[in-house]
Amino acid sequence: MTEKELLDLILPTLHTNESVELGAGDDCAVIHIPSNPSDMSLVTKVDTIVEAIHFNESDPAGQVGHKALARPLSDYAAMGTQPMAAMVSISIPEPLDIQWVTGFYQGVNHLARHWNVAIVGGETTRIPSGKVLSVSVFGFTERGRYIRRLASQPGDALFVTGSLGGSIDHHHLHFQPRLREGIWLANHFDIHSMMDLSDGLGSDLRTMLDPLGLGIDLLRSAIPVSRAAIHRFREGRSSKAPLEAALTDGEDYELIFTVSPKIAVPLKDAFKLQFPDVPLTCIGKISTSPGIRLQSEHGFEILRKSGFDHFQSNPPGN
Amino acid sequence: MTEKELLDLILPTLHTNESVELGAGDDCAVIHIPSNPSDMSLVTKVDTIVEAIHFNESDPAGQVGHKALARPLSDYAAMGTQPMAAMVSISIPEPLDIQWVTGFYQGVNHLARHWNVAIVGGETTRIPSGKVLSVSVFGFTERGRYIRRLASQPGDALFVTGSLGGSIDHHHLHFQPRLREGIWLANHFDIHSMMDLSDGLGSDLRTMLDPLGLGIDLLRSAIPVSRAAIHRFREGRSSKAPLEAALTDGEDYELIFTVSPKIAVPLKDAFKLQFPDVPLTCIGKISTSPGIRLQSEHGFEILRKSGFDHFQSNPPGN
Repeated sequence: MTEKELLDLILPTLHTNESVELGAGDDCAVIHIPSNPSDMSLVTKVDTIVEAIHFNESDPAGQVGHKALARPLSDYAAMGTQPMAAMVSISIPEPLDIQWVTGFYQGVNHLARHWNVAIVGGETTRIPSGKVLSVSVFGFTERGRYIRRLASQPGDALFVTGSLGGSIDHHHLHFQPRLREGIWLANHFDIHSMMDLSDGLGSDLRTMLDPLGLGIDLLRSAIPVSRAAIHRFREGRSSKAPLEAALTDGEDYELIFTVSPKIAVPLKDAFKLQFPDVPLTCIGKISTSPGIRLQSEHGFEILRKSGFDHFQSNPPGN
Repeated sequence: MTEKELLDLILPTLHTNESVELGAGDDCAVIHIPSNPSDMSLVTKVDTIVEAIHFNESDPAGQVGHKALARPLSDYAAMGTQPMAAMVSISIPEPLDIQWVTGFYQGVNHLARHWNVAIVGGETTRIPSGKVLSVSVFGFTERGRYIRRLASQPGDALFVTGSLGGSIDHHHLHFQPRLREGIWLANHFDIHSMMDLSDGLGSDLRTMLDPLGLGIDLLRSAIPVSRAAIHRFREGRSSKAPLEAALTDGEDYELIFTVSPKIAVPLKDAFKLQFPDVPLTCIGKISTSPGIRLQSEHGFEILRKSGFDHFQSNPPGN
């Protein structure tokens, strides 16, 4: 079977929606911008996953397909905007492993149907070895109506969804992007900034705060540690203590966001009513003092890229 | 230097334009849809090139960057629509070859500036070996205002820009996408169908006509053979006779398009005035009889995937 025959088989099965004017099979895809009384903007993201880095050769193709689409959808969750359509570009070695490719597309397609994201293009390229899978996603929003990453304000409360750490066990291939939560938050509250956790809480907080010259005081006891992080440590499968795993493990795909402390309590209450099964935890406060500090009753620690520095009293200006 | 430091260096240098609301560095990019009195659509394309397939390790990084963006822009030429913004996703091995990455982005950026295409995202992923470079492009058009690939009509005249064959010598790393020509054609004439040549004239004509059950009679003497195809054959660097190279070599990135025969002559005259340096040749006529036939005064040949079948008289119904 040639690449063309394979794509002829797969492309007609891909999920489509009412926005698609011209899907896979032409030079470009054309997606209609939905009813447009106001000033609209395109929201777009590309994300690439690589065999031996983001997944293993032995991982089921369908789960790899799920992850390939779920990752950029997680970025839409963090923007608080709806995804509309996606294009898939896969680079795989010869001979073409048809079972793998069809399994991969099934995983993509299953998630696409769940979120009504049309797949409007599929490309297969040969590569000497390994697999490289790239997904581009498009959505539309009213002009200015999205949540940025770099807009936290001093004094803001920092929230996180779900629990953190140990994603490598299971979560990284099965997570459901927090689209419903992210879009609901953006529609109902004045969210100052939001991003999804991909590199680990500590690293992603630096990405969110360092460019603004801001820092954060985290409440050590509030960090929501996942059961996976605890089990991995107890069972000797990870040398990281659970809290350290929650702070440094990547691929959580949870949302962190900041709001004025005035709305922290009503937001938490409303969220719990709307998403009773999704933990939401206020874990810290944005500070004008750069860096990440972990507060406990015994003092504070500074979280650095290289690990922790321990102190016995609270930092100044806190 | 880390990947982050490298991107921090490169991203601020990337070409932007007035459509960009939020560029590289957030979860997603946001591109404003230009003044919107009418009903607009998004036009989008992703294209991937791979080391050892689409370019060699020894090719200058800047030329690889040029090609990575020029290829999807060539698809916009074939749609007759303007590209607006692009995202770049590069997968390369460790240790990071900084000189190569900056050279690659210079090539991308130089072409982006030429066509005023904003680069709104740059992602770097590690890969065990080789290089995989993926570019997603976005543009907007009034609803329905673009040229499809699968809309040729029996009796249509088929035109081709430029000359064909031997692209591997030089053209594939240096070609300028036929954007000006494609957009001008779409704006001034009733173009029935258009596509860019990437797999070779014979193969691409099959892509354009087979799904419609149509075929074409090509005028053998009219096929515009490139100087590169002639030189490669004469100098023994290719065993393909020049005409065969023009019919079967890939990566021409020229446009083929079909129009009613009634407008063929005025179109050719107007094109020559507008683009005096760009050859435009009418090379054939769309037929209800499937297949690709090469007509000459000595009879006709049928062009098959496997080569030519020779006949001594003209086919029936021609």
